[in-house]
Amino acid sequence: MRRWNGWGDDATSMNLTTGARAMLAERLGPGLPGQDALREDLLARIPPSRLPEHPLISREPSERFAMALGESFADWIRKRFGALPAVPDGVAYPESGEQVRELLDLAQAKRWMVIPFAGGTSVAGHLDCPVSEQPILSINLTRMNRLLHLDPTSQLATFGAGTPGPLVEAQLRAHGYTLGHFPQSFEYSTVGGWVVTRSSGQQSLRYGRIEALFAGGRMETPVGPLTLPTLPAASAGPDLRELVLGSEGRFGILTEATVRVTPLPEHESFHALFLPDWDRAEAAVRALVQRKLPLSMLRLSNGIETETNLTLAGHERLVGAMEKYLAWRGCSTGKCMLMLGVSADKRTARHALREARRLLAQYGAVYIGPAMGSKWAANRFKGPYLRNTLWELGYAADTIETAVDWPQVKPLMLAMEQAARDVFEGFGQPVHAFTHLSHLYPQGSSIYSQYVWPIAPGGFAPNFERWQALKAAVADAIAAHGGTVSHQHGVGRDHAAHLVDEKGPLGMATLAELCRHFDPHGIMNPGKLLQDGGPWATAALPSIG
Amino acid sequence: MRRWNGWGDDATSMNLTTGARAMLAERLGPGLPGQDALREDLLARIPPSRLPEHPLISREPSERFAMALGESFADWIRKRFGALPAVPDGVAYPESGEQVRELLDLAQAKRWMVIPFAGGTSVAGHLDCPVSEQPILSINLTRMNRLLHLDPTSQLATFGAGTPGPLVEAQLRAHGYTLGHFPQSFEYSTVGGWVVTRSSGQQSLRYGRIEALFAGGRMETPVGPLTLPTLPAASAGPDLRELVLGSEGRFGILTEATVRVTPLPEHESFHALFLPDWDRAEAAVRALVQRKLPLSMLRLSNGIETETNLTLAGHERLVGAMEKYLAWRGCSTGKCMLMLGVSADKRTARHALREARRLLAQYGAVYIGPAMGSKWAANRFKGPYLRNTLWELGYAADTIETAVDWPQVKPLMLAMEQAARDVFEGFGQPVHAFTHLSHLYPQGSSIYSQYVWPIAPGGFAPNFERWQALKAAVADAIAAHGGTVSHQHGVGRDHAAHLVDEKGPLGMATLAELCRHFDPHGIMNPGKLLQDGGPWATAALPSIG
Repeated sequence: MRRWNGWGDDATSMNLTTGARAMLAERLGPGLPGQDALREDLLARIPPSRLPEHPLISREPSERFAMALGESFADWIRKRFGALPAVPDGVAYPESGEQVRELLDLAQAKRWMVIPFAGGTSVAGHLDCPVSEQPILSINLTRMNRLLHLDPTSQLATFGAGTPGPLVEAQLRAHGYTLGHFPQSFEYSTVGGWVVTRSSGQQSLRYGRIEALFAGGRMETPVGPLTLPTLPAASAGPDLRELVLGSEGRFGILTEATVRVTPLPEHESFHALFLPDWDRAEAAVRALVQRKLPLSMLRLSNGIETETNLTLAGHERLVGAMEKYLAWRGCSTGKCMLMLGVSADKRTARHALREARRLLAQYGAVYIGPAMGSKWAANRFKGPYLRNTLWELGYAADTIETAVDWPQVKPLMLAMEQAARDVFEGFGQPVHAFTHLSHLYPQGSSIYSQYVWPIAPGGFAPNFERWQALKAAVADAIAAHGGTVSHQHGVGRDHAAHLVDEKGPLGMATLAELCRHFDPHGIMNPGKLLQDGGPWATAALPSIG
Repeated sequence: MRRWNGWGDDATSMNLTTGARAMLAERLGPGLPGQDALREDLLARIPPSRLPEHPLISREPSERFAMALGESFADWIRKRFGALPAVPDGVAYPESGEQVRELLDLAQAKRWMVIPFAGGTSVAGHLDCPVSEQPILSINLTRMNRLLHLDPTSQLATFGAGTPGPLVEAQLRAHGYTLGHFPQSFEYSTVGGWVVTRSSGQQSLRYGRIEALFAGGRMETPVGPLTLPTLPAASAGPDLRELVLGSEGRFGILTEATVRVTPLPEHESFHALFLPDWDRAEAAVRALVQRKLPLSMLRLSNGIETETNLTLAGHERLVGAMEKYLAWRGCSTGKCMLMLGVSADKRTARHALREARRLLAQYGAVYIGPAMGSKWAANRFKGPYLRNTLWELGYAADTIETAVDWPQVKPLMLAMEQAARDVFEGFGQPVHAFTHLSHLYPQGSSIYSQYVWPIAPGGFAPNFERWQALKAAVADAIAAHGGTVSHQHGVGRDHAAHLVDEKGPLGMATLAELCRHFDPHGIMNPGKLLQDGGPWATAALPSIG
């Protein structure tokens, strides 16, 4: 069963080896295991619903509570410390686009606010309920989870928007296809959620981001349906798919998504290599991705993350022996691990791997083989479970990600880690910060930094304060280096204040105008993407002429 | 010097072989060479300018006339038959974004209409001047034609929006880079024009469409500048680049474009193969593009185009010998020619070509070698010159293109050709219609049909009528099969009436709302993309709630 106050299924947990525990203790001091709040106590404090009875709507407190929060750090500590947030007044579970339409029409007529929900895996506060006079209806799309149509000739599959990763892949696999979209949240996140937050999967190098996979579909907006035909490409004016992508529930609710699928690859394997230091590693992966070889994944850990991962791996004797060999080959302190995936027909996979190894060798890369890669692949969705384990040991963990052009990748990576250290130094606490690049492009790379620190005493408020300070400092570093507000998790509530740095004033006014256009009464997922009360929220830019 | 009433430089012409002339005579009967209008006569009829004197604006009739028309068939016969259209009242040649800003502010304050101009190669009526009470200012961007910045680490190059293809490539080549964007209009069309019409180049299979190449830039809109930062990827809400792409001058004027460039490929070659018939050929190229091999071009001619091209090629003895060999290998009547390009490092190019040949052989493909491919590459931008030659022989020619998912590719291709035959049968005239697929995607393909017919007696009116009937009938066929209004040439004036078939009513209302947002006084390129007076032009959809 899915955990109510932690990541994932409660039958799965990630153990931390003795070595890893020792490393945490050495770097961070002892953890402070908290006293978790009880779900029953939280449920008992949920106020009565302000919605009337309706056959499609449940007003059950436990269901309303389950829709109230996602997986952002703020959401997480609310549950752990029992800091009850505003919760929706009711939950609807539509089974069709028609029912979504009916619910939206009803909500608009009554001026209820609407928050769409599917996998509940947002790490950016997309599910946050505002404190509002208006009743809030959560529309849960998880019953719309079927493969509705498969066109093998065009390699197009149409899914209900609430279909989660495993059901996407299982229904496609039955026909020999894959979508190839594997974000770390794969177990729960849905095709509709991927589209409206512009998600990226671990093998985006082969399959593309969701922008490349989303071919068309249907969005129900307050003012009517927007249908997006599937076309291989078009020059027929602005591409309206690109307004649905990243719309984060502000313009309407995506009900159906048609995605581009691929036959299951004849060959797939993952390989580990080590490079002597960051500068050579970065130069190597940049040259590699700019060569445009048919690889499916590149993931480069910096020195601290490499050391952390090798400690987490356990198998101390085996890892020790490997490190001796690596040191003999020139990769010792500061070495960086590169995980490389190939997914293609057998001969193309062989060609790509051979060429990649040949190029990487010029930068001092040492090839270790597929064993660590297979282990990585087996555990590819397990990372978030570590957060549970850390919490139980008294440590908090969060991740912040961005993307930027190549010249800023290293400076920004260092600045993000340093910003975290500075913030926690201000609180008199240590933090363990480490980083990898997981989505590489000829133009630049995503930067994915992870932070672990001891839970502070005092419950919700001091821990929330530390986290807000961390987010603000790292966001400032990102903005100062020209990084994006988010590479793969969307804007939500948590990054909305910084969006103007990226979109500019006219860009923000344009998004606000689109909100008013699709949602004239402002009922859709308020405060997400665009903050309430920004200068763009009330009026377009004044006309100059 | 550039021809005033035909395609291209007057030092270049394409000769038609005796065999080709015989084929035309046999299929279409004799041509009717017209009496071309004289430029001087047209210039003499241009009414006085309604614009005041201004240091940035020329009111010279010859300059105004040169901005009045593009290369659509309607534009072409206006010049040839001397049917003078409305012309702009003045032409400005800004040399910087600041000057564009100044001109836009002035135009908005005075309520002048603005039509941006650069390469003048639109085949969709983007440059058409409305008959209007308001003066019309053409803003010619061709002086903004420089490489402004090159970032070799991120492989990004920033150009003035008016930089034409040859100056894009020459300035990049000096540094060892290419943009790789080669539309047939390459000699004159510009980077800004490519962006705002969503252009696609002949090697889009490697380099991507302009959507994939356009990383960011700056657009001056009537209400202020929209700046688009360069980012390798982002999940920060709707992608505003996608509003600039395809905006066709309705939202503002793109002044600078930053594009993703690539080192010149180590190896590039083009290869010809023949397949026995359309069904096997289509199945072969579909399988090939779905294999995702690192090829740079695929271009499949149908049987009629293959026969036409072989006749056009001349070298009758050589072609005759080749056809004997092909027939012996199973490719005779109805055979289809496939042109295949590889551009990559040497080993990847070898791998890709070998794998492609192996796969194609399963469908009966016969490989002819690189000689015809080299010839194709040498003449890759010469196609439009043939239109001049045909006109001089008394034949009119036009092309119509679209893209659609695979199941509709063959039915739509046949329907487009048949629609043309039916239209001309109604006029008691023959037409020669033939087609190729030039941009192939795993999901579907572009369809590029060409039509040649004898010029009708009677000058502009009857020839315009025939062309309108052709366009309408083929557009209906496209809409009936779910094809896009345009795959690579944009909407302009000529396809605006059909855009609603693709975007739907709410999509059209959204585009209209964006026009009002960026251009509250409606001065920007009126009637293009969105027709004047459509139901979406005056009001958004009524709110339901």
